[in-house]
Amino acid sequence: MRLAELSERSGVSPATIKYYLREQLLQPGVLVTTKQAEYGEEHLRRLRLVRALIQIGRIPVATAREVLTAIQSDDLDQNLRLGIAVRSLPPGPEPEPGDPAVAEARREAALLADEIGWSFESLPEAPHRTLIAALGTLARLGYPYDAAHLAPYARAAAELARHELDVVEEYETPLEQVEAAVALTVLYEPVLLSLRRLAQAKESGRRYGEDCPPEGGRPETL
Amino acid sequence: MRLAELSERSGVSPATIKYYLREQLLQPGVLVTTKQAEYGEEHLRRLRLVRALIQIGRIPVATAREVLTAIQSDDLDQNLRLGIAVRSLPPGPEPEPGDPAVAEARREAALLADEIGWSFESLPEAPHRTLIAALGTLARLGYPYDAAHLAPYARAAAELARHELDVVEEYETPLEQVEAAVALTVLYEPVLLSLRRLAQAKESGRRYGEDCPPEGGRPETL
Repeated sequence: MRLAELSERSGVSPATIKYYLREQLLQPGVLVTTKQAEYGEEHLRRLRLVRALIQIGRIPVATAREVLTAIQSDDLDQNLRLGIAVRSLPPGPEPEPGDPAVAEARREAALLADEIGWSFESLPEAPHRTLIAALGTLARLGYPYDAAHLAPYARAAAELARHELDVVEEYETPLEQVEAAVALTVLYEPVLLSLRRLAQAKESGRRYGEDCPPEGGRPETL
Repeated sequence: MRLAELSERSGVSPATIKYYLREQLLQPGVLVTTKQAEYGEEHLRRLRLVRALIQIGRIPVATAREVLTAIQSDDLDQNLRLGIAVRSLPPGPEPEPGDPAVAEARREAALLADEIGWSFESLPEAPHRTLIAALGTLARLGYPYDAAHLAPYARAAAELARHELDVVEEYETPLEQVEAAVALTVLYEPVLLSLRRLAQAKESGRRYGEDCPPEGGRPETL
């Protein structure tokens, strides 16, 4: 297909597609004349992923390029490509070195790893650092936690990861699978967080009363 | 305690505490002289919550004030206070009206609600809208989903919500419980998301090979 059709099918403007091409976020098409290039389904798929990363994941262009480069390196096996791609996604805040709350967080994370049978040494560093930083913040703000508090989150995450890789394996080629893994990692974050808030409201209703306040303030029944 | 001690124990500077007092994010202390006020444990607890909302949740001051006002209204029952507080937390992006992907998302969310026995009508609107927007984005970017794909996320969220309200109920008074619910909702979001990425890496290692790339690029063994 030509650029115009790629634009129509992806919903991305021709100017933005040309920008992605210049920034090497999108692989070039095959030149059919000196001025016109032909694009395929792989370009459409890549455009979707770029939009997931940049528009939804709010990832800087340079970082998106790193993720996409990792995905494409044919000489890496599937696990390494997945690992590099997911680790390249921007992490949350970094832990502050020397903070006693961070040392405590490391100890509790190690206990958690024991409890659920994970070995943190063999896991990608970036999400591990984000976890330590998040736990450090909890402790610093005076909200105590321990490995037993954290275990349900880790178990839920392990359950979801199995489901997510099953979904990813429905895609045909290894490249499509890695692309889908990266896109779904980013795109399902708001799905998971909003379902968690809905579930909290549901559980609160179950425990403390079935009513829920209507939109915009206090309920009229009060 | 005096302002200096409140500052020392909370790790919040006296200038920032005075700013929170002016912005009515922190209730005033009890005046002991015309110039000096006395603060209690409830001020310390409130300061922690304010920091969780503003520094970690990146919630605007005006929104934080709304959340805190909802928490304090003694004439509401526990479920209403929790519902209002959690619903006041800033939602994700809003769905675009008239987008066909959003209509589809509403249908799938309703199917999901049936499948897991939730009734979305009785649930807070804000996280529901965030869910619809997130699902609409998935469809628009060409990543198909259906209620069966979503059910594991909803089940994980329901499991976590039960655990979270158990943790919240360890706090003594209803006010402390609502404060903890709001703070933990915000503070556990990065915990959950980083554990999900760790679990994905772990599961990928289990399926495709036990090695994981070392920090900073391709593994040395290649």
